[in-house]
Amino acid sequence: MSTRPLAGLRIVEFASFVAGPSAGMTLAQLGADVIRIDPIGGAADFHRWPVSRETGASLYWSALNRGKRSVELNLREPQGRELVLALATAPGPDAGIVVDNAVGREWLSYPALAQRRADVIRMHIGGKSDGGPAVDYTVNTEVGITALTGPADTDTPVNHVLPAWDLIAGMTATTGLLAALRHRDRTGEGADLALALADVALAGVANMGWLTEAREQGDRPRHGNYMYGTFGVDFVAADGDRVMVVALTGRQWQALCAATGVADAVAAVGAALAADFADEAQRYAHREVLAALMRPWFAARSGAEVAEGLTAAGVLWSRYRTLSDVVADVEVGRAAVITEVDQPGIGPVLSARGPLRASGEYGPSTAAVGLGHHTDEVLAEVLGLDAAELGRLHDAGILGGR
Amino acid sequence: MSTRPLAGLRIVEFASFVAGPSAGMTLAQLGADVIRIDPIGGAADFHRWPVSRETGASLYWSALNRGKRSVELNLREPQGRELVLALATAPGPDAGIVVDNAVGREWLSYPALAQRRADVIRMHIGGKSDGGPAVDYTVNTEVGITALTGPADTDTPVNHVLPAWDLIAGMTATTGLLAALRHRDRTGEGADLALALADVALAGVANMGWLTEAREQGDRPRHGNYMYGTFGVDFVAADGDRVMVVALTGRQWQALCAATGVADAVAAVGAALAADFADEAQRYAHREVLAALMRPWFAARSGAEVAEGLTAAGVLWSRYRTLSDVVADVEVGRAAVITEVDQPGIGPVLSARGPLRASGEYGPSTAAVGLGHHTDEVLAEVLGLDAAELGRLHDAGILGGR
Repeated sequence: MSTRPLAGLRIVEFASFVAGPSAGMTLAQLGADVIRIDPIGGAADFHRWPVSRETGASLYWSALNRGKRSVELNLREPQGRELVLALATAPGPDAGIVVDNAVGREWLSYPALAQRRADVIRMHIGGKSDGGPAVDYTVNTEVGITALTGPADTDTPVNHVLPAWDLIAGMTATTGLLAALRHRDRTGEGADLALALADVALAGVANMGWLTEAREQGDRPRHGNYMYGTFGVDFVAADGDRVMVVALTGRQWQALCAATGVADAVAAVGAALAADFADEAQRYAHREVLAALMRPWFAARSGAEVAEGLTAAGVLWSRYRTLSDVVADVEVGRAAVITEVDQPGIGPVLSARGPLRASGEYGPSTAAVGLGHHTDEVLAEVLGLDAAELGRLHDAGILGGR
Repeated sequence: MSTRPLAGLRIVEFASFVAGPSAGMTLAQLGADVIRIDPIGGAADFHRWPVSRETGASLYWSALNRGKRSVELNLREPQGRELVLALATAPGPDAGIVVDNAVGREWLSYPALAQRRADVIRMHIGGKSDGGPAVDYTVNTEVGITALTGPADTDTPVNHVLPAWDLIAGMTATTGLLAALRHRDRTGEGADLALALADVALAGVANMGWLTEAREQGDRPRHGNYMYGTFGVDFVAADGDRVMVVALTGRQWQALCAATGVADAVAAVGAALAADFADEAQRYAHREVLAALMRPWFAARSGAEVAEGLTAAGVLWSRYRTLSDVVADVEVGRAAVITEVDQPGIGPVLSARGPLRASGEYGPSTAAVGLGHHTDEVLAEVLGLDAAELGRLHDAGILGGR
């Protein structure tokens, strides 16, 4: 199979920030023709940080909108809205699919779309299931993750910086959309799909058993960088390098004990405490004493020596790195999923290929185009507008991209 | 459309922990017949925490394996492996699809599968793209998220507790699998798909522009609970309640200033500093002085009063909660995506419906079955084994589930 299994499929994206745009980007990497529609001047995410120091352009926007076609329309005017509806409901078995995160835009509702194309598939991404607003940072505090994250010795909750729920929601949306498309391919029936970020987060914590645990046993305490329910611990080497070490399986645990030279001491402690450390629950219960036994091995070695010893023994481990460390790895070619792309309006950027590999090949990484770049092209190709009509719409201020 | 657009599709899952099982669970919620295969006694995740205090059964395993059929086979024996291959490559347009995260099982390789069914679709989820091991906690430290998360006043990196990359990888896998299925439906061509957790994480940070930013501008500092590049701040009420407040858009910013009564003071500060707070980048740059202007409003009010004031003004905000707080919300029916299910072997559990809604309906939430529960049923139905053959395989120790 090629890396573009969705070639020929057309998706209209009317979304901003992470969830919707990452859905569209992923579908584009899988070969779909993704048409992103923006209001004149760009949506609310057009200047989102980080921005390029040289040009001020958003590195975030250009990364999340790669591989799409960009159409810029005046959405304050009925004529602009009419064009969105026409693009979204254009005929063809490979069209009539919309991803949006529009708030309060009744003109783009599912009934409005389905009235024009009965088998339209619409995936609406929202904040809360009742229509209320939410973003990644707000849902993450609400589902209790911040109460479990961070140092054990404070009561202050910690927000993590990764917009995880957004990214999960984006891929959940693409999953739902493609499932609905298979159903439509077979039955001719469209779909009115919706996904709330808050629901993704609630389901996420429930899906790991955490809600049932809290109801049964109360809240577990936060405990810093330890992993929950197993042996996952961070250690610091003599030169300050920090590593994460994980022993989920018996084999990983034995490798770790051997690497750090504590097998005998661990056995003695196990005997004294009547603990069986082959059981990850007991490794977890006694994590502090076990970590204390191992810590001198790390503290007596440089990061390089620690790395060598852990790797040689087959331990599951990693180094704590900064983004700059990742960049350095990329520069020496050690991160094949990252490539350099010349991004118009910015210059060379570090850009991800599609992480899904087909027959060993990553998905493509192309640059983002300028806002509105394909406005005329798309309206001509999909809706059949001719040059005179496009000229009139430009004169009337309905179209951007010129 | 019903909430089961994949009804009739058969997926064989041979995976453990979060990414693969969450992929299978989601496909099951969309209607697919997901057959999870475990070795006798269960895979390495069968006892993963959290566990039920009463029964010791894993709340995690039962949550992530809901809605699937369970087949338990002796994978040390060639006969057991043969059954896995036969299930994975059984004929039919709605079969021949495998999701696995098997490490070093050459007998289950893509060539081995494709030899038996040329159009098989195999989605292999791994740690690193070179076959090396990795888990969520190790890839997260390696891509620099831990260096940005946590209090501003320490140099200690912070692991967040959400296995975000696992969950993202699971949904990326379902997306890739359904894209490949559409391609197969149209062309008859199968797919050798692979996804590495480390690649998902590297692509994730690149997709927000963070790698390019680090290369251009160096590492940004961690800054506690502030959101990056906009105005997102946590505040504490008089009674200790903590809220997250976010102003991404101009309207959200105006609402926040109005709610906290600082509009005039903010205007004066803007004039004095020559800053335009309509621009989120400037709200970010001056976040500390802006937060300091607002803090007294929060400190003078109870959490309930804060909530009322923010909501009335249309501010985007949330409360920092614990898992127990979420449970309390569920108990009063305020979280429709969560339901109670009677889980055999455990009792009543809080279980998520599928968060994707179709025509307003959530996906189903069913219980997980016991390990191996469907072993005989599946082998009879899919492979046509009769009672005598099943009996012989049980006697030979090849089958579990009895």
